[in-house]
Amino acid sequence: MELQMLELYHGSPAANSLKALLPLKEKGVEYVSHYMNLLEFEQHEPWFVKINPNGQVPVLVHDGRSITESTVINEYVDESFPGVPLRPADAYGRAQMRIWTKFVDEYFCPALSFLGWHAMIRTAVKHLTPEEFEARIARIPLKEQRDKWRESAAQVWTDGQLEDWRRRVRTSIARMEEGLRGPWMLGEQFTLADVSLFSMLIRMPQYYAEIVNDRDSPRVIEWYGRMMNRPAVKETLAIQPPAGAERPRRSTGR
Amino acid sequence: MELQMLELYHGSPAANSLKALLPLKEKGVEYVSHYMNLLEFEQHEPWFVKINPNGQVPVLVHDGRSITESTVINEYVDESFPGVPLRPADAYGRAQMRIWTKFVDEYFCPALSFLGWHAMIRTAVKHLTPEEFEARIARIPLKEQRDKWRESAAQVWTDGQLEDWRRRVRTSIARMEEGLRGPWMLGEQFTLADVSLFSMLIRMPQYYAEIVNDRDSPRVIEWYGRMMNRPAVKETLAIQPPAGAERPRRSTGR
Repeated sequence: MELQMLELYHGSPAANSLKALLPLKEKGVEYVSHYMNLLEFEQHEPWFVKINPNGQVPVLVHDGRSITESTVINEYVDESFPGVPLRPADAYGRAQMRIWTKFVDEYFCPALSFLGWHAMIRTAVKHLTPEEFEARIARIPLKEQRDKWRESAAQVWTDGQLEDWRRRVRTSIARMEEGLRGPWMLGEQFTLADVSLFSMLIRMPQYYAEIVNDRDSPRVIEWYGRMMNRPAVKETLAIQPPAGAERPRRSTGR
Repeated sequence: MELQMLELYHGSPAANSLKALLPLKEKGVEYVSHYMNLLEFEQHEPWFVKINPNGQVPVLVHDGRSITESTVINEYVDESFPGVPLRPADAYGRAQMRIWTKFVDEYFCPALSFLGWHAMIRTAVKHLTPEEFEARIARIPLKEQRDKWRESAAQVWTDGQLEDWRRRVRTSIARMEEGLRGPWMLGEQFTLADVSLFSMLIRMPQYYAEIVNDRDSPRVIEWYGRMMNRPAVKETLAIQPPAGAERPRRSTGR
């Protein structure tokens, strides 16, 4: 029964989970959703670490074979399924697209996720005893992530370090503002570059209004409005956790 | 005259420059070489920053259009030119390849280049006065790079931080050792995954013999030996700077 089956393990439609969810809607590809409870760190549970040893979502499972990394997943989905192409037809266009998706992965996303994590960690762990906190950390597969947890929970970062991460976010938006080539990032075609950037931008007009606004980034704001009007974006943002999903859900047969 | 022309701006055949040089040899693609003097930081000179605003090599210029980022360049070259394919024919194989090339870019290369830079900075700048050093820094386009220069020159890093970077290098080699699927990283086919990893590994059996050696990483050592026997690898490693290249060379017509 697993053959010919497409499954996506993902969190709420934001950041890297949104990045992997949106192309499936844009292309009209059917899949089985495994909505993970990231606030309860379900991605670090042993059953999921068997699926992705890094303990991270999203993960695509196609005919029983796993693919990790949202950016890699998206090129795979575009190459493997019919529907509207989300990559330019020419090699130069694809290269330009990949420079953007790489920029998101290596520069924009780390800055944003650092700041988001820094703001969120106290809320996320405040109901845990120190022993529970250590137990949660102990099962995180990647040392870099364990370190980030500990350092963020201890709030060791200086104002200067936090400001440097904010500077990177500002630089990312400035680069977008300058780089927009048309209605979409690369011009007339909606591509995975738009998907990657939007997945990061999604909450920024609200939470980073001092950076993303009509005055400082008017073209980004217009692009954001066009994104929000896309039917596939509306459908993807409306994805809700399944009823009773507060407890970890295991997929059938795993 | 620039049409139908392929040019590569690169440094010596190591790290990211090696990564972009090797596929051109493997595929037998002719190109005009612009061998940059990275030890004199030619990549930060104004004429080159016009070609790549980030002031980084390698840069491929094809028919007058620039492509940056060695990993992006390599997929472009494989898509654009005849010769032996350096990417798997199937989408799943390409996804596996991209997970490796992404791992190199986001994890392995930053660790290795941090340590290399830390070891090299004093030699690279010892002939400069403080004023000359500041002038060199002032023309570096990316703030992250300016910070890295200043911090490395001041040798601010603690032993603990340096050890953490070495741990990442060890982790990278351990992951390779475990991940090797055949004679090449993905199995029978030589791909851009091998190219990316080899570009990082090139000097490691010599300079990181405590990590890359027969006992701890026997499969990596065997793979390294196979790599060194490839004719295209031998030709690429033999690339020498042009005579009299101590002075910056401008390409004709730029």
